[in-house]
This record gives sequence, structure tokens and C-alpha cells, in this order.
Amino acid sequence: MESIQIQFVEDKQEFSRFPTKAGRRSLSRSISQSSTDSYSSAASYTDSSDDETSPRDKIQVNSKGTNDFCVKNIKHAEFGRREIEIAEQDMSALISLRKRAQGEKPLAGAKIVGCTHITAQTAVLIETLVALGAQCRWTACNIYSTQNEVAAALSEIGVAVFAWKGESEDDFWWCINKCINMEGWQPNMILDDGGDLTHWVYKKYPNGFKKIRGIVEESVTGVHRWLYQLSKAGKLCVPAMNVNDSVTKQKFDNLYCCRESILDGLKRTTDVMFGGKQVVVCGYGEVGKGCTAALKAMGSIVYVTEIDPICSLQACMDGFRVVKLNEVIRQVDIIITCTGNKNVVTRDQLDRMKNGSIVCNMGHSNTEIDVASLRTPELTWERVRSQVDHVIWPDGKRVILLAEGRLLNLSCSTVPTFVLSITATTQALALIELYNAPEGRYKQDVYLLPKKMDEYVASLHLSTFDAHLTELSDEQAKYLGLNKNGPFKPNYYRYTFPC
Amino acid sequence: MESIQIQFVEDKQEFSRFPTKAGRRSLSRSISQSSTDSYSSAASYTDSSDDETSPRDKIQVNSKGTNDFCVKNIKHAEFGRREIEIAEQDMSALISLRKRAQGEKPLAGAKIVGCTHITAQTAVLIETLVALGAQCRWTACNIYSTQNEVAAALSEIGVAVFAWKGESEDDFWWCINKCINMEGWQPNMILDDGGDLTHWVYKKYPNGFKKIRGIVEESVTGVHRWLYQLSKAGKLCVPAMNVNDSVTKQKFDNLYCCRESILDGLKRTTDVMFGGKQVVVCGYGEVGKGCTAALKAMGSIVYVTEIDPICSLQACMDGFRVVKLNEVIRQVDIIITCTGNKNVVTRDQLDRMKNGSIVCNMGHSNTEIDVASLRTPELTWERVRSQVDHVIWPDGKRVILLAEGRLLNLSCSTVPTFVLSITATTQALALIELYNAPEGRYKQDVYLLPKKMDEYVASLHLSTFDAHLTELSDEQAKYLGLNKNGPFKPNYYRYTFPC
Amino acid sequence: MESIQIQFVEDKQEFSRFPTKAGRRSLSRSISQSSTDSYSSAASYTDSSDDETSPRDKIQVNSKGTNDFCVKNIKHAEFGRREIEIAEQDMSALISLRKRAQGEKPLAGAKIVGCTHITAQTAVLIETLVALGAQCRWTACNIYSTQNEVAAALSEIGVAVFAWKGESEDDFWWCINKCINMEGWQPNMILDDGGDLTHWVYKKYPNGFKKIRGIVEESVTGVHRWLYQLSKAGKLCVPAMNVNDSVTKQKFDNLYCCRESILDGLKRTTDVMFGGKQVVVCGYGEVGKGCTAALKAMGSIVYVTEIDPICSLQACMDGFRVVKLNEVIRQVDIIITCTGNKNVVTRDQLDRMKNGSIVCNMGHSNTEIDVASLRTPELTWERVRSQVDHVIWPDGKRVILLAEGRLLNLSCSTVPTFVLSITATTQALALIELYNAPEGRYKQDVYLLPKKMDEYVASLHLSTFDAHLTELSDEQAKYLGLNKNGPFKPNYYRYTFPC
Amino acid sequence: MESIQIQFVEDKQEFSRFPTKAGRRSLSRSISQSSTDSYSSAASYTDSSDDETSPRDKIQVNSKGTNDFCVKNIKHAEFGRREIEIAEQDMSALISLRKRAQGEKPLAGAKIVGCTHITAQTAVLIETLVALGAQCRWTACNIYSTQNEVAAALSEIGVAVFAWKGESEDDFWWCINKCINMEGWQPNMILDDGGDLTHWVYKKYPNGFKKIRGIVEESVTGVHRWLYQLSKAGKLCVPAMNVNDSVTKQKFDNLYCCRESILDGLKRTTDVMFGGKQVVVCGYGEVGKGCTAALKAMGSIVYVTEIDPICSLQACMDGFRVVKLNEVIRQVDIIITCTGNKNVVTRDQLDRMKNGSIVCNMGHSNTEIDVASLRTPELTWERVRSQVDHVIWPDGKRVILLAEGRLLNLSCSTVPTFVLSITATTQALALIELYNAPEGRYKQDVYLLPKKMDEYVASLHLSTFDAHLTELSDEQAKYLGLNKNGPFKPNYYRYTFPC
Repeated sequence: MESIQIQFVEDKQEFSRFPTKAGRRSLSRSISQSSTDSYSSAASYTDSSDDETSPRDKIQVNSKGTNDFCVKNIKHAEFGRREIEIAEQDMSALISLRKRAQGEKPLAGAKIVGCTHITAQTAVLIETLVALGAQCRWTACNIYSTQNEVAAALSEIGVAVFAWKGESEDDFWWCINKCINMEGWQPNMILDDGGDLTHWVYKKYPNGFKKIRGIVEESVTGVHRWLYQLSKAGKLCVPAMNVNDSVTKQKFDNLYCCRESILDGLKRTTDVMFGGKQVVVCGYGEVGKGCTAALKAMGSIVYVTEIDPICSLQACMDGFRVVKLNEVIRQVDIIITCTGNKNVVTRDQLDRMKNGSIVCNMGHSNTEIDVASLRTPELTWERVRSQVDHVIWPDGKRVILLAEGRLLNLSCSTVPTFVLSITATTQALALIELYNAPEGRYKQDVYLLPKKMDEYVASLHLSTFDAHLTELSDEQAKYLGLNKNGPFKPNYYRYTFPC
Repeated sequence: MESIQIQFVEDKQEFSRFPTKAGRRSLSRSISQSSTDSYSSAASYTDSSDDETSPRDKIQVNSKGTNDFCVKNIKHAEFGRREIEIAEQDMSALISLRKRAQGEKPLAGAKIVGCTHITAQTAVLIETLVALGAQCRWTACNIYSTQNEVAAALSEIGVAVFAWKGESEDDFWWCINKCINMEGWQPNMILDDGGDLTHWVYKKYPNGFKKIRGIVEESVTGVHRWLYQLSKAGKLCVPAMNVNDSVTKQKFDNLYCCRESILDGLKRTTDVMFGGKQVVVCGYGEVGKGCTAALKAMGSIVYVTEIDPICSLQACMDGFRVVKLNEVIRQVDIIITCTGNKNVVTRDQLDRMKNGSIVCNMGHSNTEIDVASLRTPELTWERVRSQVDHVIWPDGKRVILLAEGRLLNLSCSTVPTFVLSITATTQALALIELYNAPEGRYKQDVYLLPKKMDEYVASLHLSTFDAHLTELSDEQAKYLGLNKNGPFKPNYYRYTFPC
Repeated sequence: MESIQIQFVEDKQEFSRFPTKAGRRSLSRSISQSSTDSYSSAASYTDSSDDETSPRDKIQVNSKGTNDFCVKNIKHAEFGRREIEIAEQDMSALISLRKRAQGEKPLAGAKIVGCTHITAQTAVLIETLVALGAQCRWTACNIYSTQNEVAAALSEIGVAVFAWKGESEDDFWWCINKCINMEGWQPNMILDDGGDLTHWVYKKYPNGFKKIRGIVEESVTGVHRWLYQLSKAGKLCVPAMNVNDSVTKQKFDNLYCCRESILDGLKRTTDVMFGGKQVVVCGYGEVGKGCTAALKAMGSIVYVTEIDPICSLQACMDGFRVVKLNEVIRQVDIIITCTGNKNVVTRDQLDRMKNGSIVCNMGHSNTEIDVASLRTPELTWERVRSQVDHVIWPDGKRVILLAEGRLLNLSCSTVPTFVLSITATTQALALIELYNAPEGRYKQDVYLLPKKMDEYVASLHLSTFDAHLTELSDEQAKYLGLNKNGPFKPNYYRYTFPC
Repeated sequence: MESIQIQFVEDKQEFSRFPTKAGRRSLSRSISQSSTDSYSSAASYTDSSDDETSPRDKIQVNSKGTNDFCVKNIKHAEFGRREIEIAEQDMSALISLRKRAQGEKPLAGAKIVGCTHITAQTAVLIETLVALGAQCRWTACNIYSTQNEVAAALSEIGVAVFAWKGESEDDFWWCINKCINMEGWQPNMILDDGGDLTHWVYKKYPNGFKKIRGIVEESVTGVHRWLYQLSKAGKLCVPAMNVNDSVTKQKFDNLYCCRESILDGLKRTTDVMFGGKQVVVCGYGEVGKGCTAALKAMGSIVYVTEIDPICSLQACMDGFRVVKLNEVIRQVDIIITCTGNKNVVTRDQLDRMKNGSIVCNMGHSNTEIDVASLRTPELTWERVRSQVDHVIWPDGKRVILLAEGRLLNLSCSTVPTFVLSITATTQALALIELYNAPEGRYKQDVYLLPKKMDEYVASLHLSTFDAHLTELSDEQAKYLGLNKNGPFKPNYYRYTFPC
């Protein structure tokens, strides 16, 4: 008990870091300027609302008479429904999964508590789980990212949602608790994004935790800080699926997504012309590879900094000069950090940048650029647009800082629904797998998605591109020593880190 | 006299086409979502204004006590000044020209009337002209594109501006007339964008027209519909400079700009993922070349339609399949028109498109897509965002139409200040050239910018890129038969059409 | 007469420059390592030949008993025939022209003397001219470039060919003279490549020259040194067609061809890996654009030098740093010259290059690199492969010089038959046009190919790519003010210089 | 004994497959048209040699009086020395390793037998091993790939080389045996390429085998057929290092190398123009990714076939249409196989290809294209160049088959010395590691190169590109949980399969 007490103190520290939690990677897939205001009318719903009453103090009932939910305004359900319908258009893999498995109801009996961003895309996932037989209770993993109208639409059809945009810290944990703690309802599956829900159940409902059949976690933090740590400490008494490190997610969330969002994020915030600009990209992992490829293609002159000789050699072969930041700091127009490291751009370097240069972060958190060092009296900050600050030196030099150093693609660009579809499909399959796995297949450990399932997720998304897979003949399969239906990668293959 | 009367009737017809004037090419450089709302506070200034009084009915005085202007609100001058300062950062060529020529005042005595979009970038041009000695009176070439705060800032420093956002048709001509018709002030230079100002002077002040020393015109319409027609008819009694067809403008406004704005326009409106998308680009001129290059680089699969065998062959060599639209209409995700033609995408073809496909126009006007054919009772239009309509077929199929078929890059993306700087510098130089040209150098005709001047504009912009020109040695210049300082293109070289 | 005498002295000087004539642009399309040794057996035919007798001293008769030709060995005709058949596969446009026009024999009565490289591709052209009704007599424009077996094959079917590989200077003019000077045969058309034939007729047969109905010339030298000079001097008494500056030729010979041949030339000679290499390309015209695009795509880091601000600005926007050569000379791995200028790379700069760096020329002649300056006693030359010299400095530094500074793509790579097909088709059409043009259409001047014909050449080549042209509707043609069948470019459009 | 007898029968079967052994991957790095004839004089040395005496029957002595070697002609040593010196220029990493470790002689006492291709690049490796203290005896892993002059040069300085170009099968094993079986000399290290040497020692010298301290093997065959099989069977009594699957080798040998060699191989054999060509690439692993990237960059239109949904999705996102081969077989100009599979292109499909289309293989062996099916009476084969056959159908259709379906980049293009340097450096480090590893670090198993060593190899090659690594600060290293000097990849990272 004592130890738990102590850990709660630690938790409190985590709580106080709340605003920066927005910077964690997993968030990047869900809150974006546009997805929250994709309908102009939506914006007015939310923003012009003179309704300042806390949802916790409201009494709301959906059209079926149920009140087992807590959202901003149940009346906005119809609008949210339309958002969900639009999202469905680009999530055909999930819809297809829904159709294929609807008959056999592979999640019949599953009682899932979920803690994710609550957006139109998540709604498509939740409604798929329901269609496959599950009962779901849901809460938000971030206090800002909930699309209120979508939460209303889910509540309207009977999903127990506890979430709204702009929760307080106290609201956040209250909502989580409401999800779990329901008379006569014992969750047996967890879908988490960030580990907060898992952690809460582990601490507050240790007995309930033991009855969980499986945890599906998709964030770096949740996987590497909670699950692997718990497992190492021998305290993980349920099998867990690490969705974060699946191949499809890695490639899509990082390489391909960043290739598009770096351009989008820079344009929306600064209208900068890419042609001829000198750019330095710090870090040449998957994120850096995506950013450099896009900028090179648009006519920028791109430099790379790296600590790892192998990634450096790749950068060379891909046509980028590998330099130390100080070598180019006076000449570049744009700095982009993608390292996962801290203080990659220091005050000293910011002092030497050109007037009008742009600094932003595509990496893991707001530590990459030493933004704190810019909050000193001699520098003036001028907010020129949402997410765009001019930091002005005494001599009049302006450096343009985006999103205060937080993730650019999280704050200033959108993530295509197609990419969210890949993650959501993976989550659904992971839940099905864990829920239906025969006794003994999974121990009390953290697992990667089976290769075959990764391939299945990919194959469900090929129809979007009208791509036609070639099938092995019996003879060819034998020659290669493969099953005709996959998996097509050998057992020793595992792709878990950008290179 | 009679003929003028008749022509006025024609003018009226032009007036009734006002809303579509927004579609003309020249506009593309100035009104964009972002440039008009680049400061969030700016937006509130303008939008939340409960001041519905027409500027024509207001009495306003700037801080120096002058009232020779008519803008929305002179009190917003300070905000506009900041916008201008920010624009100056990316217009170093113009600032550099200002500094170089400030001593000799090459425009001393010039009385310039201007009719252009009134934006921060134009303000930098106007203030450059003033710094070089000119007196300026200015009005807007478009009823929607004026940045009110910038107009105020100009009026505050004594430029006589007559323009505001949201003018009526009557206001438009009233403003033009106020610019020209000032007691004791006779314009001797015209800077026009679209030909309306030129036309008005020609019609209303035929005597004044003859005293003009030169006209500088930058729009396709102004050049090819007015100036060349007047010249052909023998009625152009002043030399005119065709800025539209200068090399720098063609390449930058078309190839390089479209390469960036096609991505920006599509992302801002639809958040579409480019990777793997099948796109057909109609037309492979400079605009089409820019669009296809960008989309190919982002991982789209791009098809091209063309009528011209030479451009077709280029498309082939650049790696695009050249098809008829009907061959791919059922499979493509995105159609982009860049032809300058009409009815390039017909209702019949729209009927055959896939659910969720996107249709937009990067060409010359809203005629390329037969949008009118979609305004029929059986189709439902749903406005999902600003500039984005879902057109819904009876079977539920949705086609996403952007900007109602008007120019995407005009409506839904921004144009970098750097590109505007090129045009503005060209305009300034053209004015200087015409104003200072010795008697006889220019006849009553339409001229292209002298090659040397084109090169000078380009050279002024090289410092932005820290580009270093190589200089010819005497021996090399002799070998090539060139002057060491250019022009570097032979006399027979003229680049005036995309190929 | 006196003046002619004097000019002959000048001609002599030209003769003494013979070896460097190989460097002229027009040559680039025909002699290549591979086309001359495309059959291994061919090589042995030619090389192992112990037959050192001059063809002028031989008595040869073809299988029909004719002896009006002079080639290396008429017995090799069959082998040459196979080379021609292979070339025909990639020249479907010419074959198609042959078929379309074979019935009407548009060249019936034409007596054409030709002076070009004599290769399999030229043979396809010549046989097309014959099929269209012409009588042809042919000679080589270069003393080294003749494919002897092809010359034999042509002679075998009755074309009067006077050419062999390895002619002496005296042989060269003897062959030209034999072509023209035939009893009872008066040429009425000239097809020239380099101007030598034209010049000879002009000087030696002034009366015959006047009877020529048209000259078709394809080389820069022939066009700009001879034809335009003659025309300027009022001495060009026949219409001439400038094929060199046609759109298709410019784009294909320069941009697209160089994009491929720069890679091919470097690989075949040095096996260099492109990835990560630092390369400076001097000159950013069409040739430079092609080279830089290819190398950038292969992962090289490319710098550009330029004298022209407009091309410099393009280089910037295309993503290349524009530098002075001295800024990067110590760091680059490869220098490529594409300027058309002389002494672009000086001895002083070669002294500063790195050990192992490569220097080559893609521009107009061997003057771009100051190769002469390397022929000094302190430097050692070591020939390591054909066309590859190591120049060794006293400290052991080696610089790799390709083709002794002559054109790389001429000497060390091949030109695709498809590109030769474009030029050959253009030449055929130009001959047809001049021969059939109604009196008065062409004066005694130099003409560009009519736009429509340029487009026709392009359209004949589209089938190779299975490209499908879109046709204008009547309504669209009217809207654009174009004829439905082209030309599709406006009258004021003329593309004649790389930019 | 019996079992060995039986296995020898199997070996015999292997022997009979000798010619196809040329197709195995490991070979690709060494025999290439150019590396064997890089000096024209070299070619003549070898080819024109009228010396048909078997080296085994010759008595040769080097200048020091030693005769412990067997090569073609010891007198050609000087020429070989020059080849080695040229190779050293591009192998600065190995030279640098030689200098760094020369003092401490980390291989003092090592007695290495090697079986690899014997080329100038291998010579640089061998001489590095000698410089670090090793005694070396060497033989060739392929009967065709030995550069005789290089073998002579090595023998001249005292390395015991037993190899020549054109060995018989019997010679091959005689040479291997001579390497091992030397009075008073017991090898303690093996460097193998293909497993033949290892196998011979294992079978013939079981006692000697046990005294080996380590095996370094670089080929797929050697690693996956011999070492892992032996290990699985519990018969591998020495630690072995799998160099084949090191990151640097995978990326360089496959992705980056193929990106260049596909273009080179196609050009050298066919002079084909890439622009506008339709190409289908079968397989989208690293090799396929390299090929498609290069061809797309050169303006080809590229289709991909795949069996694996994940690779398919990558192909889509990279901008390629994923099709079944039959969908495009009639329209493509070029087919390239990169699958590692067999019968990927069948006779039925070859029957449907276009006239003039090209078929080649970049994958693992000559099984990918069903070449055997083309050897039927109704088809005519015509050899048009070295490595190029026209297969002619009864209707005259020609399909161009390259290298008879064997590896194109092995047969028809070269591999840059820089890439060979990476592999050679890895081999040297692996030998040093195994030789010096403390007791117990390596068991009797197959190991991948330690991550840190992979990174060291990479770092040694960065200077070639003048790339500058960024160093972690103490604070940053702590934040990332990394040692400042690497390894920089987490433990769970392993890259062993193309994806």
C-alpha cells in the first residue's frame, strides 16, 4: 500500500505535466486544427456556446431515454453523426472488417473500456467493436482533443462516453473512473492510448485488473513506460498487445505521414515558399526521412544532422549533406527537429539564426528546441497567428517559432483519415486476437502484433488504392518455404525501429 | 462619341460579370484566405466590426490632418503597418531597389495612378514608388481583395487610397474615378491590373489619356483583351509595358508557384493524403507541369490529358501516362484542370466518378469544370467547409468540388510573398523604364520588358537564396559575343508561352 | 573570285581543326561507342580487318552490278542490313511516315545530296526518302563516325554512298565532291549536318547552288555560322530550314537526352557511385537542367554555377545551390561543364581539385575545360581506359579527365534511337515541305519548321508511348481560337533557347 | 564415415550446378564486365594470351624466390599492383582502419584462409589483414571471377594465392585444398564467401575444423544453407559471424546499389531510353525499391507486382500501381524481376509481350524468368551483343533477354568500389572481433555483427562524403539512455529483411 501511495505522488507529478502531455506522440493522430473544425457550423456550435455549465453538472438524456454518459451537449448528436459518416468514407478497411466479422460476432461478451482521443475516426472504431458484439465504455485520453459532437453521437446510440473538450485534470480522472466503475459491469478488455486508463485500473482496481483478458496499447509512452516496465517488474498479470511498434503504424505514422504533414504544417502556419529554401533537418530516422524527402522534392536545399553513423550514411546516399548544426546555423531558413532528443537547438544557436528564419519540431516532444531559453526579458514574443510566434531580438531580428516547439504535425496540420484507419483496424484486430486467443497462446507479457495480422491489416487497405496482390502458386510457395497466405516475412524478421 | 456610348453598354455587361472576375488569373496573387486573415486580430477587426456605414459616408482624417483618401477605418493603420513590415521581410529585392535608387529619385515628378489588389505586398511596392520620388493615388482592382488595415496604413502616410473590402459595383468605379479626378493633379503614369483603370481613363478622360507617358499592365486580360486590342485598332496613344509575359513572372506564377499551391490548396480544403492517390491532371502547360511534379513527388499516381502533341511528348518523357479523360475517369481520386479551356470536365464525366473523388481547377477560370451542369434538382449540394462542397448523387455518391470550380490556388491557398516580390519589382522597373526612356525608344505600342531588365529583376532576388552569380571574363564575353553584364539571352529568344 | 580565294584560306584553317570538329554538337547524335560496335562481330569485321587498301583504290560492285559508290567493303552489306532492321524497331514514326506518304510519293523528282553521320538510323531516314520518291547521294559529315557495314548496305540497294570510317581530310572532300559532281545528275535538295556540303556547293558550284530548291540543316554550326551569316550577307539564294532550333529537337537532344546520357557516360567510363557524391554542374541551360535532375535523383549533392540571373533563379527554385566554382572546387567529386563557353574550368582550379575527382564536359566543345593547360611536363597523363585519362600531379594527386574534355555524351555514351528518330523525322518533313511548297511561301532566307510540322513530328512519336491525345470539340476550339488540328501554340510563341 | 560419403555425393550434385553458382548473390560484388577489363591492356594480357598451359603445370617463382602460390602468370604482378592502387583510392575506410590498427597488430598470430572473389578490392582487404598481423592463404570462390594480374600481385608480395580465371571444377577444389593443407601451418580463422571452403574444412579436416577460432561468412548461401543448418544440427563447433545480414551490407548491396546498377545494366546492354517507358518491377523488397526509384526518377512509368500486402502498401504510398503481371504484360516495355522466387515470368507471359520489349532479372538467380521455356524449336535465339539475346517468335516478334535471365547487375553492370569497401571493412572487423573476443563471448553459433561494429563500419565511410557526425552531450546521452559513443540503436532493433 505504501508503495502505491508513493507512486501516486509520482502520478501527481505526471498530472502537473498535463499541458505538455499534449506533446506526446500518440496524440498526433487525433487532434488537429482541421478535424475539430471541419464543419464551419461545428465550430460555431462549440465556440459560440454560451453554455458554461460543466457537463458533470448537467442532466442529459439521449433519445432512447438513457443517461449513462457525460458529454457536452447530447443535442449535437446529429451533427456528430455526419462527421462520423464522412470519416467512414476513408475507413473502408474498418467497414470491410465490420462486414466480414459481423456474422460471427467475435467480440460477443467483450466488455471494453477505452481511453483514446474521441474523434470521428475513433467513433468508427468504437461502432465497429459494437457491431462485432462488444459492449463499450469510453473516455478521452487528452483533455483538449474531444470532438464534442462526436461524443454526443456515440452517446446517442448508447455507447457510454465520458468526455468533453476542455476537461480539468479532475474531470479527466473522474471520467476515467466513471468508465470503469459501473454497477454490475466488469470490463474484460482495455484499449488504451497513453497508459492512463491501464494505470488507473492497476492502482485502483487491482482485483478488476486481474480479470482483464487483454490490454491493447498504442502509444510509445504507454508501451515503453508502463507496459514493459510493469512486465519487467513482474507485475503485468495480463497479456498486452503493443500496437505502437507494428510495421504498418511505424511506416505510416512516421515516414509517409510526415512526408505530407511537414509541408502542410509549414504552409498553414507561415505560407513559406519551399523552393530554394535552405533547411536543416535534425535527425534522419523515419520522421526525418519523410521530412527531407518532401522538402527536397519541393526544391528546398536540405542538410541533415545525425548522431548515428548508419543513418548518416543513408542520408549521404539519399543526397543530403550531413553537417553539424553549427556549420549551417547562420545560413538556413528553416530548422526542423526530428531526433527524439532534447536541446537539439540551443539558445546559442537560435541567437545566430537569420532574420525571418523558421524553427519547428516534428520529433517527440517540446524538449527538442530549447524554447524555455527564449522566455527571457530581452526577447519579445509576438503572436502573429494561432501557433505562430515571432520571437524578436533586441536588434529587430525575428525568428518564427511554430507551436511553441511542440509537435508541428500535431498542432498545425492534419493527419489523413486513411492513416487513422490503419491504426484503428490494428487496434480492432488486436482486441479480437487477445479476446479469442486459446488459453496459453499469450502469457502475462507484452506482444507485438503477429506478423500475419500486420499483413492482414495491410491487405484490408489495399482496395483503397485498387492494388492487386499477386498470389503464390503452390510450387512457388514451396520453393520459398512459405504458406501461400502468408506471413511473407521470415520469422527472424522484425521491424521495430526507424533506420 | 456615339461609339463610346455603345461601348459603355458593353462595359455594363462586364460589370454584371463581376463575381466571376474573381476568377481571372491576375487575382491569384492577392486574395487568399490567409493573407486576409494573417493576424487573427485582423480578422476580428474586420469581421466583428459592427460598423456598417459605407466608407463613402464617413469623414476620416489621418494623423497629419489629410482627408484625401477613402478607406474602411483609418484607425487601423497601425495594425496595417505591422503587416507591411512583415511583408517587407520577404521582399528584399524591392527594398534593395528602394535603397539603390533612393538617391537619384528616378520617379521624381511621376504622378502614378494605380489599380491593383491592395495588400501588404502592394503596399511595399507603393511605398517604394514613393521613395523613388513618385506621387501615388491608388484604388483596388477587385471588390473583395482589399486588406482594410493596409489601406489605412497607406492613407496614414499620405498615399491617396480609395478602396475597401466589399465594395459595391458602384463603389468600384467611384473609387477609380476619385483616383484620377483630382483638382490640380494630372496623372502621367498608369499601373493597372486587369485594365479597368486604363479603360476608364481612355473612355472618360481621353485628353488625359494622351498625356500619360506609359502604362504598366500585368494581367492576361489587361494585356491581351485591352492593350493589344487597342494597339491593333490604332487607338493606343501611349506606350505600354506587358508585365504579364515576362519570363520571371511566367515561371514563378505558374510552374513554381503551382508546384506548391496545388498541395497546399488540396490539403487545406480536404486533408487528403496524396500518397497512392490516382490523379488526372488536364493540361500539361506550365501549370500542369507544376501540379504533376508536386503530386508525383508526394507519391500520387498521375495521368495527364493533353491536346498538344508536343506537350504530350514532354509528359511522356517526364513519366506520365497521357490518356483521354474517359479512360481513367472511373478510377481517379482527384481531377485537376489546368487547360485554359472550357468544359474540360463534363457532367457526363462527373457522373462516372468514384464516391469521394475530388474535382478542382488550377486553370484560368471557372469554365474548365462544367459546374453549371451540377446545379440540377437531382443532385444535392452540401457545403462542408468554406470552399468545399459535397455534391451528392441520388445513390449517395459524393463528389467533392473545391471553390465551386474557381481557381483553387486563388481561393484555397496562399501565394508566397517572395513571388509577389518578383512581380512587384518588375512593375517598379517597368514604371521607371517608361518614365525615363528617351523620346522615341518606345512608340505607341505594347512592349515586353527588355531582357536586361528581366535579368535585373532576377538578380535582385538571388540574394534571398544566397546565390552567387559567376561573372564572365572579358575573354569569355568576347567568345560568346555577349556583354559582360548581360543580357545573356540572344535577341531571338523570347519565352512567352508554356511548353 | 579573289574573295573566294581568301575564304578558301579560311576554310583551310577550318580543315586543320578537324580533330576538334568531332566536338561539335551535331555530332552528338550519331557516333557513340556502342552504336559502332553494337554487334560484337561488327567490331571484328572492322577492327580485325587486315585490309588496309583505301576504298578509293578498290573496285567494288554491288549485287546489281552497280559501282556508283565508295565504301569500305560492299560484302558487309548483309550485316549492315541487320543493323538497319534493328534501328527500324525504334523508329516507328519514320516507318509510319513512310507508309502514309508512300502512295503519293511527295519526293518524286527530288534529287537529294546528303552529308550526315552514316549510321543505321540515318539509313532508315535515307531509305524513307527513297521510298517517298527521292534519288539520294550521300556522304559523311565526320571522318570517324561512319558505320562501314551500314554504308555497304545502302550501297547494296543502290544509294550512292561515299563514306568510310577513318577518312583522311582529302578523302572527306573527295567524297563530298563525288556526291555532287555526277554526270547528268543535278541535285535540287541538300540535307546537311555541319554546313560543309552546303559550303562546298556554294563555293565550287555556284550555278548549281542556285538551282537548289531547299536546304535542310540541323547543326548549330551549320545554321548559325553558315546559313544565317550567308543570309545576312544577302548571299543565300535558296530557302533553308533550320532544324536545329525545332522544339522537339531542343528538348530531346538536350534536356531529356542529357538526363540519361550524363549517368551513362559517367558509369561506363568510371563506374563511379552517384549516391552521396558532390557534383558541380557549370551552366543551367537545358543540358545543365538535364544533368542536374538526373544526378539529384541518383542521390548526388549538386551545385550549379551560372552567369545568367534568370537561369540562376530557376536553379534555386529547383533546389540547387548556385555558387561560384571557386567556392566548391576543393570539395566536389565531379565537375561537369554545360555552358557553351570556354575556359570554364581553368588550370588553377584543376590544381585545387581533390584526389580522385572527375572532370568532364557535356557542353558544346572541348574548350570548356582548359585541357591544354594540363599538357605540361610536371603532370603525368595515364590512359586507364578508352576515353579515360588520369592526370597525375607531382604529389600523386590524380584527376580523372574524360574524353580529353570533348563531349562526354558523344564519346562515352549512346544516344537512344528514339531521339534520333525525332530528328530524322523532322528532317524528312522539312525536305518534303521545302520541295513541295508553293512558289513564294519561302523566300531566300532561313526558316524554322512551321509549328504545325513540329507538332506533327511529335504526334508521330506518341504511339511509342501508347499516349492518347485529347481532341478539341468544335465549341472548345472556338473558345480557344484554335484550329481543331493545331497548331496549338499561339503565333507569338517561339521556343528557341534553353531557359 | 558413411554419412560423409553420402554427403560427398550431395556435394557432387552441387558441383554439377557449377555454372548456375555464378548466379548467387554474393558473386554480384565482384565479377563485372568492367572490373575485369578495367585496363584495356589487362584485357589483352588475359585474352590474347597464347599461354594455354594450366597454372598447375607451371613452375613460377616470385621476385623473392617464393613459390608457395599458383596463379596464371606471376609476371603480370606489376599491372595488378596498379589495379590495387586504384582500388585503394575508393577504399579509404579500409586504409584508415589499416593505419589505426597497424600499431597494435590485432591479428598477430591469426592464420587466415580465405575463399572469395579475387579482385583488386579483395586484395586491399587481404593486404589490410596482413598489415594487421595476419598470415593469409587465399583461393577463389568462383571459377571465372579471378583477376589474374591481381592474384599475381598478391603472390608477388608473399600472399599464398591459389586461383586463376577459368579454373575447372577439379582445379577449384585443388586450390581450396592447397590453401588449407600446408605443412606446418594450421589455419585458425576462415573468411568464406559461399561456404565451399568451410564445407571442405568441415568434411576433410574435421580435427582442423575444431581448432578454428572463428568463421566469417558473407553470402546468403553460406550463411543460410551452411552455417545456420550446421548450427541447427548441433555440428557447428566454432563461432561464426554472419556478415550477409549486417545493416550496411543490406542497404548498400541492395537498395542503393541496385538503384544505380539497374540503369547501368540496361543502358550498357540495350541503350534503351528510360523516359516514357512502361516498366513492371516484380517484387518490392530492397532491390525492387532501388530499381523502381531509379526508373521513376528517369521518367519511366513503373508498375509493381507483389505477394506481400505490407510491401504492396509501401509501393502504393511510393506512387506505384500494384498490379498482377497479367494486367500489364501486353503493354510494358521492360520487365525486371526482383522477387527471389521462381517462374515469376512464365512462357505464357513472354508470349504476350510486345515486340522489342526487354526482360531481365535483378533478383537472386536465373530461376525468376522461365528461360528454359524459351529454348524451344519454334523460337530463334539471336545473340546481338555480349549478354544480349533477341528471342524471335515465328511472327517476327523479338523479345530482348538480358544475361540469359541471370543477375543483370552481376553480368552487365559494375559495383562501385565504395560498396565493396563497406563489405570488406565489415569482414576485417568481424575477423578482428572473433579473433580477439574473450573466451565465452561467442558460443558455437552464428552471430550478427554487433551493432556497435556496424556503426563503426559506417562511421569509417563517412569521411568519403565529408559528412560530420553530431556528438551527444552528456546530458543528451543520459536523456536518451545511450552511451555517447553508441550503439545508437536499441537492443531490440534488428534489421535483417527487406521491407
